[in-house]
Amino acid sequence: MVRVVVVYDIHDDEKRLRLASRLKSIGLSRIQRSAFAGLLDSQRLRDLYRICESFATDERDVIHVFTLCGYDWSRRRAFGSFREVEQLVVVV
Amino acid sequence: MVRVVVVYDIHDDEKRLRLASRLKSIGLSRIQRSAFAGLLDSQRLRDLYRICESFATDERDVIHVFTLCGYDWSRRRAFGSFREVEQLVVVV
Repeated sequence: MVRVVVVYDIHDDEKRLRLASRLKSIGLSRIQRSAFAGLLDSQRLRDLYRICESFATDERDVIHVFTLCGYDWSRRRAFGSFREVEQLVVVV
Repeated sequence: MVRVVVVYDIHDDEKRLRLASRLKSIGLSRIQRSAFAGLLDSQRLRDLYRICESFATDERDVIHVFTLCGYDWSRRRAFGSFREVEQLVVVV
């Protein structure tokens, strides 16, 4: 299992909503408006990369995926009104 | 030096522009609409945390800061039209 952070700029509103829905469907949780995080196994991570490839099609679309080790995840800082992603606190 | 990724939702347009300007001023580069990345020394990282605290004041504001080790940085994936942050490729 790997901790994943996905940050996206998707120009088309409808496509952006569909991407959020897909990210939820593979087990990620929204941590801010255009960012999701969660724990994925290697199969789900491959699914995620395929999803990102299929959604970042407009020249204004950008999606970044960061996979974080436990140490880097533990050092994350959140400011303001954020949702803690509970399951990510668990060391796996 | 540490690799940093900053992702922000700032509700107020003017404040969001000022935050982007501050992030640039401490040496970070925009990697997508509301995300910056770059290499910071420990003093600049403390500056970054102070900036984030001072900007995430509205209940709708959220800023996440992730510090990434070299391995995690090397595993990042970008999809679509993105700007490569050249200096982050250098191993420090």
